[in-house]
Amino acid sequence: MNKRITVLMASECAATAFLLIAVVGSGIAAERLSGGNVALALLANAVVTGCALFPLILAFAPISGAHMNPVVTIAAAAFKRLPWAAVAPMVAAQVAGGLIGVWITHVMFDLPVVQFSQHIRTGPALWCAEIVATVGLLGTILRCDSYGVPLTAGAVAAYITGAYWFTASTSFANPAVTIARILTDTFAGIRPLDAPGFIGAQLAALALVLAVAKAVRFTLPAQSK
Amino acid sequence: MNKRITVLMASECAATAFLLIAVVGSGIAAERLSGGNVALALLANAVVTGCALFPLILAFAPISGAHMNPVVTIAAAAFKRLPWAAVAPMVAAQVAGGLIGVWITHVMFDLPVVQFSQHIRTGPALWCAEIVATVGLLGTILRCDSYGVPLTAGAVAAYITGAYWFTASTSFANPAVTIARILTDTFAGIRPLDAPGFIGAQLAALALVLAVAKAVRFTLPAQSK
Amino acid sequence: MNKRITVLMASECAATAFLLIAVVGSGIAAERLSGGNVALALLANAVVTGCALFPLILAFAPISGAHMNPVVTIAAAAFKRLPWAAVAPMVAAQVAGGLIGVWITHVMFDLPVVQFSQHIRTGPALWCAEIVATVGLLGTILRCDSYGVPLTAGAVAAYITGAYWFTASTSFANPAVTIARILTDTFAGIRPLDAPGFIGAQLAALALVLAVAKAVRFTLPAQSK
Amino acid sequence: MNKRITVLMASECAATAFLLIAVVGSGIAAERLSGGNVALALLANAVVTGCALFPLILAFAPISGAHMNPVVTIAAAAFKRLPWAAVAPMVAAQVAGGLIGVWITHVMFDLPVVQFSQHIRTGPALWCAEIVATVGLLGTILRCDSYGVPLTAGAVAAYITGAYWFTASTSFANPAVTIARILTDTFAGIRPLDAPGFIGAQLAALALVLAVAKAVRFTLPAQSK
Repeated sequence: MNKRITVLMASECAATAFLLIAVVGSGIAAERLSGGNVALALLANAVVTGCALFPLILAFAPISGAHMNPVVTIAAAAFKRLPWAAVAPMVAAQVAGGLIGVWITHVMFDLPVVQFSQHIRTGPALWCAEIVATVGLLGTILRCDSYGVPLTAGAVAAYITGAYWFTASTSFANPAVTIARILTDTFAGIRPLDAPGFIGAQLAALALVLAVAKAVRFTLPAQSK
Repeated sequence: MNKRITVLMASECAATAFLLIAVVGSGIAAERLSGGNVALALLANAVVTGCALFPLILAFAPISGAHMNPVVTIAAAAFKRLPWAAVAPMVAAQVAGGLIGVWITHVMFDLPVVQFSQHIRTGPALWCAEIVATVGLLGTILRCDSYGVPLTAGAVAAYITGAYWFTASTSFANPAVTIARILTDTFAGIRPLDAPGFIGAQLAALALVLAVAKAVRFTLPAQSK
Repeated sequence: MNKRITVLMASECAATAFLLIAVVGSGIAAERLSGGNVALALLANAVVTGCALFPLILAFAPISGAHMNPVVTIAAAAFKRLPWAAVAPMVAAQVAGGLIGVWITHVMFDLPVVQFSQHIRTGPALWCAEIVATVGLLGTILRCDSYGVPLTAGAVAAYITGAYWFTASTSFANPAVTIARILTDTFAGIRPLDAPGFIGAQLAALALVLAVAKAVRFTLPAQSK
Repeated sequence: MNKRITVLMASECAATAFLLIAVVGSGIAAERLSGGNVALALLANAVVTGCALFPLILAFAPISGAHMNPVVTIAAAAFKRLPWAAVAPMVAAQVAGGLIGVWITHVMFDLPVVQFSQHIRTGPALWCAEIVATVGLLGTILRCDSYGVPLTAGAVAAYITGAYWFTASTSFANPAVTIARILTDTFAGIRPLDAPGFIGAQLAALALVLAVAKAVRFTLPAQSK
């Protein structure tokens, strides 16, 4: 493993760990403080996730693209922005970072470190929602790329804040995040049994976006940088 | 129908579909989760719509202007940014996209796909509100155009988030969205009987803005691009 | 009255009218929908005012500076950005615009057009709060000016959204807005008797900022544009 | 003490005073208005703090860097952006500014000026949270620096809004703010006894960030400005 790959992995691991701290931590705080008002909890959870994504993307994009998401990494390789050889290590780093982030969050909130979610999230409606969520996320990233990192960071942050609400699944849209959320029996969790359905929908959305992009070439040309 | 028009239509259809997913989907989620607290539901609905508009405008503006709105398309033609021949196809695509968006949302939230709203929204006060809302939206777009797409996207997103609250009608300000919202008996819906009043007010606002623009030439000169 | 002054007046009148629609309209909606939860009402009111200020400043700054506020107009003259002869007409236009905005809002929300507030807002603590609020607003505008209109618009919008909460007076910080808010017996109103105290505090803050600016020259040099 | 240091101190004192007004003032308002709903109070507190940080950083960054935070000042010296001789005076000014801000806030809200918090915030979980919060804040600042002041201001504002929620300690992440918050027995307060634990965690995070930066040189090269 060469040094470049190590840097990519460290960056994706750190970024994804912090993303999970934001997602899971704000969910725990929201659940504790909201007195059962799920709308208020989800509003806080959504706003906080957007607020975390903006600095995270700014910080890590110059190093590794700040994907924090296997479907984004695969899409980057498909559009020749990233060598295919980097995909597996980066995805592994994202998954590992997600777990680390969840566990750090449990320490911060004084909860058992290792736990498994019992939160049921399944069925065709939610899978459809995950397809919509992931198509929207990939579309945002691909279409905003030419505006540069700051606007992409703002667009992705805004998109995810919105998508928590407008998709029935609260927009996981990310296999690494889905796996990490198995490991927390809190607001943001997902039952282990239900994760494959979500991840399958996310991969289906990726395939759909790649097919559409190939068909209509709506993607942007590779940049010189 | 030439290829350019087809691209415009596809872009407006996709963008408007996603806009309706955001508007109707967040309304459904807000209503389900807020336990009858309408202020909290509207806050979520407004913030989410703004969060969706920002990436949508960034993504689709370079292709078709990201109007998602017949009055914006007509105004663009009136200011010679768009050939008049493109107006009818684009408006048709916006209306079609709105319907598709509403139906996708119903699938995501496991609701009957075809439904009609029973939400009463009528009377001179609300029509006045729609005039204010539409004048403000068109003014924002026309006056911000010279700042470029990203700032226009931010300004429109902020404006609509605000206008959900400061207009008594929750600011439809868009005939295609109004038609689409007939077809959902959820938070964002409008009774079929009431849609013509809203659309009439929106068109009156368009006429008012065009008349004022002609009188004071406050509009921007046509750009070279 | 020459044509330049007329344009300035029309711009400030329209901008201030829309600002009052945002402030008063969102207050009415928030009060109606929040079921007595004042925190939720103020959160909506604050976010909406910020969301309105951003496009308003972008739209009107190139014409008249988008002051919408007599203390800002006086400060602009004191810093030689504006001829002193323009101050009185612009302030008159701001006050007139404020009244028009309040009345349009009452029509939209189906309320009696002419009304007077009974909302008590008085005492040294609130006057102190208005001084803090106005110092902060003027400081934001003067210090952000060199970043250009879009960042100033964003900074002012963010500042006012925050200041609704962190000043005990909910940050009027604007004599024209204070006068206009006399005329609405709704969430945003202020009792006629209490307006002079608020306006006095705002003018005291202006004097303080001008004195400090003169002493430390922290203001920016006049720009060439 | 030379004139340059005096300017730095005045700037940091004023900026930190205003930051505390925002943090403590919005906490008081939120507690008074939210009727015991802590989630709503924290949401307002977090959004308002972000809204205040954005204009504050824009306003004071060109003068003194707008640190408002001893760990940021020490980091700036460690990265050779600031002479070490400036650190102690700036930190003193930050602490003094924090106290002034808290006391102005108490005047505004008609509370006893001098008070001490009884809010218990202690234990390893919260210290861990303060480490996470401070690492994230320093990382955001160091990594966003090359984007320039406006984006750094936006990133820090977003980060802190998020970190109020995703860290279990509501993200003090600032020794000067921690000391100032001892002096208010309101929503934002911290018991005097508990402050050293928080400040120790913040300094530990600083040491960690400096060690990592030295190890991986992830910091940015000194800029020419």
